[in-house]
Amino acid sequence: MRTVTYGAACSLDGFIAGEGESIDWLHFSSDVQEVMKAYWESIDTIVMGRKTWEFAATQGGGGDCAVDEGGISTYVFSRTLGAIQQPGVHLVSTDAGEFVRHLKSGEGKGICVMGGGELAQSLFSAGLIDEVSLNVHPVLLGSGVPFFRDAGRRIELELAECRMIDGGCVLTTYRVRRPE
Amino acid sequence: MRTVTYGAACSLDGFIAGEGESIDWLHFSSDVQEVMKAYWESIDTIVMGRKTWEFAATQGGGGDCAVDEGGISTYVFSRTLGAIQQPGVHLVSTDAGEFVRHLKSGEGKGICVMGGGELAQSLFSAGLIDEVSLNVHPVLLGSGVPFFRDAGRRIELELAECRMIDGGCVLTTYRVRRPE
Repeated sequence: MRTVTYGAACSLDGFIAGEGESIDWLHFSSDVQEVMKAYWESIDTIVMGRKTWEFAATQGGGGDCAVDEGGISTYVFSRTLGAIQQPGVHLVSTDAGEFVRHLKSGEGKGICVMGGGELAQSLFSAGLIDEVSLNVHPVLLGSGVPFFRDAGRRIELELAECRMIDGGCVLTTYRVRRPE
Repeated sequence: MRTVTYGAACSLDGFIAGEGESIDWLHFSSDVQEVMKAYWESIDTIVMGRKTWEFAATQGGGGDCAVDEGGISTYVFSRTLGAIQQPGVHLVSTDAGEFVRHLKSGEGKGICVMGGGELAQSLFSAGLIDEVSLNVHPVLLGSGVPFFRDAGRRIELELAECRMIDGGCVLTTYRVRRPE
């Protein structure tokens, strides 16, 4: 079974982007590069919602991590987007939970859930997320795009890793506990 | 100048109490006892809003930490409460920011901001909070009483401490950076 991870850099008050989608507070360092390098090697699939796709496009993002051949396959969930004209990026208009459940049961490396919480919320609800990783930055943004949204039930976690990295950031990884 | 600290145990998604003010997810341990013992010795004043006061009362709390003589002085901010009949607990109906600014400039040990974020929000806005401490528990509650609320501006922090404690909890302390 492939591992589905949900992770991001966020502020101490839980936002992955501030007002106006600002990300100028993000701290890049060799620590982050090292962590991300190891992470990208562990996955071969990215899933995201429409808003994250559109945000990534404005950042010149989407394309960088969407190379199908020998690289990473990206699936964008949307019932309103017409088409995506980018190699390696697939538009999915069916139920995200069902689709990810199917992906998860197949062959392959890890699956990364990217984005602003709405897709993750439905995947948490469906019990499909296995790991949560946060790179907590030392700032309170006050408002913006929240990392977590209400999955409708309590989700128990297990701390797998915690360490301080450059810039006063705290890196934590949690495994999702399955109900007994 | 006395140090004003705002701290709590919270879920990974930032709630200090879950739906229905539930706190059954809190993990008590000798690590927590040790941290709290050192913390109580460092303060002599607690400030809180009305909701926190009423919640503490239901938990049998308020009284325990409200002994004026040789102990801790508690100030409850409310413009609606009529009176508080408890030794060591003072009702304050004037502006919380002004009152805390005055307390801060006087003699004494540290000042603890207790509670559910509304008082802290106004004290953050007024630039009166010096330290933020969190004991992050490995659980997603989804909804409840948030620890942080929007202070109306970005607040830069400096990580002072981070360590894992019993129960998969992560203890962090941040100092609030003052604008240059």
